[in-house]
Amino acid sequence: MRGAVLHAPGDIRVEEVENPQITAPTDAVIRLAATCVCGSDLWPYRGIAPVEGPTPMGHEYVGVVEEVGSAVEHIKPGQFVVGSFATSDGTCEICLSGYPSSCVHRVFQSGTQAERARIPHADGTLVATPGMPDDDLVPSLLAASDVLGTGWFGAVAAEAGPGKTVAVVGDGAVGLLAVLAAKQLGAERIIAMSRHASRQKLASEFGATDIVTERGDEGVARVKELTGGLGAHSVVEAVGTQESMLQAVRSTRPGGHVGFVGVNHDVTLAGDELFFSQVHLHGGPAPVRQYLPHLIDLIWNREIHPGKVFDLDLPLDRAAEAYQAMDERRAIKALLRP
Amino acid sequence: MRGAVLHAPGDIRVEEVENPQITAPTDAVIRLAATCVCGSDLWPYRGIAPVEGPTPMGHEYVGVVEEVGSAVEHIKPGQFVVGSFATSDGTCEICLSGYPSSCVHRVFQSGTQAERARIPHADGTLVATPGMPDDDLVPSLLAASDVLGTGWFGAVAAEAGPGKTVAVVGDGAVGLLAVLAAKQLGAERIIAMSRHASRQKLASEFGATDIVTERGDEGVARVKELTGGLGAHSVVEAVGTQESMLQAVRSTRPGGHVGFVGVNHDVTLAGDELFFSQVHLHGGPAPVRQYLPHLIDLIWNREIHPGKVFDLDLPLDRAAEAYQAMDERRAIKALLRP
Repeated sequence: MRGAVLHAPGDIRVEEVENPQITAPTDAVIRLAATCVCGSDLWPYRGIAPVEGPTPMGHEYVGVVEEVGSAVEHIKPGQFVVGSFATSDGTCEICLSGYPSSCVHRVFQSGTQAERARIPHADGTLVATPGMPDDDLVPSLLAASDVLGTGWFGAVAAEAGPGKTVAVVGDGAVGLLAVLAAKQLGAERIIAMSRHASRQKLASEFGATDIVTERGDEGVARVKELTGGLGAHSVVEAVGTQESMLQAVRSTRPGGHVGFVGVNHDVTLAGDELFFSQVHLHGGPAPVRQYLPHLIDLIWNREIHPGKVFDLDLPLDRAAEAYQAMDERRAIKALLRP
Repeated sequence: MRGAVLHAPGDIRVEEVENPQITAPTDAVIRLAATCVCGSDLWPYRGIAPVEGPTPMGHEYVGVVEEVGSAVEHIKPGQFVVGSFATSDGTCEICLSGYPSSCVHRVFQSGTQAERARIPHADGTLVATPGMPDDDLVPSLLAASDVLGTGWFGAVAAEAGPGKTVAVVGDGAVGLLAVLAAKQLGAERIIAMSRHASRQKLASEFGATDIVTERGDEGVARVKELTGGLGAHSVVEAVGTQESMLQAVRSTRPGGHVGFVGVNHDVTLAGDELFFSQVHLHGGPAPVRQYLPHLIDLIWNREIHPGKVFDLDLPLDRAAEAYQAMDERRAIKALLRP
């Protein structure tokens, strides 16, 4: 089959790779209906995270189950499924407490930018849709598998809700969908931090009430100005850099909540600043699987349209163009069709 | 009047200082019934925090109101009062949200190791007891003004409660009272981390079910061993060093809560470790004022005896001995009687 493989920074190729097989009785093999490029794929693509030999890429996916292992009870061949980038057994104490992304048997999914993929712990990882989705729902269902679920977690971790002012640092797909999530969770006011016209527009469409174009300390000052000098109740951090983390912490009022979902790279936080900021800090790999039933329901009923973050739609064979467009921020998010 | 003044690291003297005056209409002046030495007083005493000229010491206090400013409405002369180390107006949005220790008008109290003290924002800071306390209640009421309130906040921030396993890093007065708080909050299992026999004994008396003597990575391994390999649900950090913060984060299961109340000194946290630990982190200067009515009630009804942390009781004039005993860890906490 065909699959996208990163050979070195900047060198992504779609080539013949091995067909996935059931290797554990809890596995499923799915045929991808759609997949996409993640902001986190750009870390190795840019050479910021190391590339140790040819790496099959991709961890976002929707598709049709082709085959399941002998121990899979709930997921059946022929079902259309959505899964998370972090596989989970669904039965351990950590899964049951609402954190499947830290499941004791977690594996980070890889190799879904391909025609087929093996999904470990199929029963605990995959959620079947009510039926075969209409074509227009596919991008939104695909978004649920990572960027929507991650933005949602960011908003939940930041305790977005009625009466709250929520600020979102980062205008990538995750940040934009954190805006959508905050809106769904009932936030009163949503401040999107963005300096790109097309992203500002989408943020407003998703529910942002205010746009802040300043960054760093100036961005913090602007958020404080908008919140009576106190800072936002809830801040979602959806970038993962030193600047964005500090911007998030400093934009939050004492007693407020920071939900951080940007994969942190070379970030260090000073203990005394965290101490005196008196914020709540929570984040990490999003427990997407926990939210999937609800998110699929919202999408199926056309109450939310997270698929709008895909502003580039290419056949899988043109993955290199997709990576390039996202790297250069010409695309918010690129969908790939195997 | 007499008051304790730190002149240089290790050089604490009780000497003649100016009598406090009402300087703002919201002030009160109290006559101290008892005061004490705080673990955080040891930072400048040890020269770890800078000493910039002679510094009046002390921020824990109980006493009788002598005088109030013209704008003080609720606190009256003659009342026995307990206050917090962080003064608060009690009316700002941050106070009303439950974080008086980050009040927009907060002042960190100082100079209570003395015969009298000026307390800013008396109405928002002080809580009167139901009457004049019996002598045996005074140490416990004094504990409420900082170490009990701080340990309580640590346990609340760590979300200690029914069904939870709580670990406490630090066996100073705050750590020991976090054990008491966790017990009061209904925790199922409480692991005290201590290698000092007298502190272990008090921890057990306050409700600890397990004692772990190992520190650092070995301490983490021991907590994991006691919690099915997962880590505790709730961990209170009550020291404030790099080692203790990492020990706390690493002893917590994914999705669990770290309440950190040790004043952080030279601590840095790696963003990626926090990210993948998936813990909740919350702490800072404890919003003691929020808890005082409940804590005073528990003490007044003799349901809790936090005053047991005072294992040294000296006249104010012997403050130097009190500092020395705490510095050398010969005393858990020293009470001073003006």
